[in-house]
Amino acid sequence: MSEDDLPEPSRSPGEDSGSQGAPAPEAGADPAPEAGAQENAGSPVGRGLSRRGMLALLGGGVAGASIGVAGTAAVVAATGSSGEPGAGLSYPFAGAHQAGIVTPEQEHLHFAAFDIREGLGRDDLIELLQDWSYAASRITQGLDVSARGAFDGGPYLPPDDTGEATGIAPAGLTVTIGFGRSLFSTDAGEDRFGLAAQLPEHFTELPKMINDFIDRGRSAGDLCIQACANDPKVAVHAIRNLTRIAFGRAQLRWSQLGYGRTSSTSTSQDTPRNLFGQKDGTANIRAEEPDRLEEHVWIGESQGPDWAVNGTYLIARRISMTIEVWDGVQLGEQERVTGRDKRDGAPLSGGGEFDEPDFAATDASGALLIDERSHVARVHPSNNDGIRMLRRGYNFTDGNDDQGRLDAGLFFIAFVNAPERFSVVHKNMARDDLFIEYLKTTASSVFLIPPGVSEGGYVGQQLFEAG
Amino acid sequence: MSEDDLPEPSRSPGEDSGSQGAPAPEAGADPAPEAGAQENAGSPVGRGLSRRGMLALLGGGVAGASIGVAGTAAVVAATGSSGEPGAGLSYPFAGAHQAGIVTPEQEHLHFAAFDIREGLGRDDLIELLQDWSYAASRITQGLDVSARGAFDGGPYLPPDDTGEATGIAPAGLTVTIGFGRSLFSTDAGEDRFGLAAQLPEHFTELPKMINDFIDRGRSAGDLCIQACANDPKVAVHAIRNLTRIAFGRAQLRWSQLGYGRTSSTSTSQDTPRNLFGQKDGTANIRAEEPDRLEEHVWIGESQGPDWAVNGTYLIARRISMTIEVWDGVQLGEQERVTGRDKRDGAPLSGGGEFDEPDFAATDASGALLIDERSHVARVHPSNNDGIRMLRRGYNFTDGNDDQGRLDAGLFFIAFVNAPERFSVVHKNMARDDLFIEYLKTTASSVFLIPPGVSEGGYVGQQLFEAG
Repeated sequence: MSEDDLPEPSRSPGEDSGSQGAPAPEAGADPAPEAGAQENAGSPVGRGLSRRGMLALLGGGVAGASIGVAGTAAVVAATGSSGEPGAGLSYPFAGAHQAGIVTPEQEHLHFAAFDIREGLGRDDLIELLQDWSYAASRITQGLDVSARGAFDGGPYLPPDDTGEATGIAPAGLTVTIGFGRSLFSTDAGEDRFGLAAQLPEHFTELPKMINDFIDRGRSAGDLCIQACANDPKVAVHAIRNLTRIAFGRAQLRWSQLGYGRTSSTSTSQDTPRNLFGQKDGTANIRAEEPDRLEEHVWIGESQGPDWAVNGTYLIARRISMTIEVWDGVQLGEQERVTGRDKRDGAPLSGGGEFDEPDFAATDASGALLIDERSHVARVHPSNNDGIRMLRRGYNFTDGNDDQGRLDAGLFFIAFVNAPERFSVVHKNMARDDLFIEYLKTTASSVFLIPPGVSEGGYVGQQLFEAG
Repeated sequence: MSEDDLPEPSRSPGEDSGSQGAPAPEAGADPAPEAGAQENAGSPVGRGLSRRGMLALLGGGVAGASIGVAGTAAVVAATGSSGEPGAGLSYPFAGAHQAGIVTPEQEHLHFAAFDIREGLGRDDLIELLQDWSYAASRITQGLDVSARGAFDGGPYLPPDDTGEATGIAPAGLTVTIGFGRSLFSTDAGEDRFGLAAQLPEHFTELPKMINDFIDRGRSAGDLCIQACANDPKVAVHAIRNLTRIAFGRAQLRWSQLGYGRTSSTSTSQDTPRNLFGQKDGTANIRAEEPDRLEEHVWIGESQGPDWAVNGTYLIARRISMTIEVWDGVQLGEQERVTGRDKRDGAPLSGGGEFDEPDFAATDASGALLIDERSHVARVHPSNNDGIRMLRRGYNFTDGNDDQGRLDAGLFFIAFVNAPERFSVVHKNMARDDLFIEYLKTTASSVFLIPPGVSEGGYVGQQLFEAG
């Protein structure tokens, strides 16, 4: 990549008052696209933003110009004092797997899906993924999206970074990028990016289920980004800035905010409660269970294709919960529906939260302690060919309807190494799980999460190098 | 208040399996409406929930029954390990002023407005406010809404508390309750609650302004509740449970989630950045400025009426920000629009963030350093008869439109001792503030926040005792 660096005007308060002029001459800009080593610490992608990415940041006004990534942006101070605690927590962007899967689940989510603009080709897609990877490698370390960032681009350019996460990032931010099935082949069978031959055989959509009322406008997409952080401002900043970098190349299709994790992905975390007041995700796969991750989550060589090994599939379902109906249900019935004690999360067959349910246990009258149609019975691995998944969902509350009912529920996210394995469990639940009565799924998506990024690489590189 | 206590059935796993039956006999329930002293610690309202409030919790299924507030609910453990840090932080509900105004602004908001059901009268309204005050006095201390709470009502009743805040409350929760103008007199002049004579002369609505595109369904209401906490689950739990207690009496009209404070209300807090990346609320009134609070925020005896003294007015405006347009604006122009340096928040006339702007300062060419139409110039007290306000707003992001643009902005909240004082500043801004180009107000409300609650009292008691 070569960049014609823009001169940097000197700057003083007032000098820019009222100016809408073109970039002024400057001197001394660093011609190398790489920022200084200090600024790029933690960045696996040393190449900087593409010319296209730079133009997107500039908007339509300064065609033909571009910005070098050199500048004086320093590592953002992570005091957190104007944000959520834990601002200084950071996770590497590079690794064998993408971050944001086994990473201890953060408290906040901004999820977004994008469609590639018509007329763009394979090279455009690669460049977008390179730009996103570069920016993601920076913001996950608490840096601005580029070296010039929010404040160091001079008065005559729109800032590269929108600036609202300054001083509160990275707050444990992870950015996880995925591919929709349409990226390989549209519904009409079009192969826009020369990827049809690489479509994994296991990359299937989910069948329609009972209580599926799917809004297509809130489902699927060519690309997805899951941004998780312990400060919602940092997650929103990530989606906003990555959307901006994609300007003219990919358009935001739908987005969802979530708050409060509804699973634990590490043994170091307590089990949280969902909006039905239940402990949720007790039987989740944890980061500390490598064998289960290999068996259930990571795409292995036997599943393939090779380029996707160490990747996974992300299932996202927006599940509206009939809050007011549930809240009027007797405690005993709530527990029968879930099969667990509401207070401590223990199976109704006895023991503690993490004890295995005994689906054969009966009371004195011979009745099963755990109803056959309870949620725990329907989804438990022992009743589903041993299939498990790594759940990583969030609560959502999107206002209320005109009857005063909250539009709230679970933005369900799970990672599995084949969507049909999720469907086995899901079908078993959807046919007559007692819980289904209180749920209504309003959006449903499957994305392939490619394997992790090597130092200097970009998300999806294995795919494009495969052919 | 007297309660016919419901018998409490004994309970074992499985016994309730499939049961939808009526309450079973029990023995030993405490006939006193007050919970034990330990359970009621921090509660200014010793009376418990009204019969009506209890029925609301029960839903329609068990007419005529009621629940005593005695029980075994203990103070919720505030470990916070499955929620946000700071779970143990609590603020008293009782006091001269309501909490949630000068309280150091928390990180999360759930705001809701309600309309009283048709046909209800003054006593119903009083009872609702008593029930809300009782529940609020408990949940702000990390307790469930009643002593039986989420788990101690037995298997045959819906739980009093929805349970999702268990273990993560109170997280600094404040519950602030307000009155809409319609509570005193409807648009048609109807005096539903015998309060028309008590309508404060200063309780006026805001005039329509430039760039007001007001959705009435998202504005106003008979009552409002502002729930703020450092964990969004705790704020949502508060609104959800107070909505539930109001069932059949008041219906949720509109609601708004907010994340990330956009002001500081204490000198102990850093200035946060808003979604335009600017430091926001630099000139805010702080809790540590009692003289300014008396002058600008608290309703004084000279303003009256007597029952409202120590109350205030809450202005709530949902201000959509044209994020994508702003992000394409040159840094220098962004700073001209706001009149402040984007990085450090200092006025463009020089100095640091907290230095007073010098609106007469000029550069070498004689041009003003701070544009006359900049936001800081338009809203500064020195240009508005010295009027200040206490701002306490939040960011919001409610998905995106079909063009992929974020539906995001500022849920502006300010407290002033007369709405017309807010209007003076607002008019000065709305006429030609450069900032207005990037804003669109989609909802607008004014609520009177009555003074604080005495021990054993309820919100609004001063009003109903006044006549």
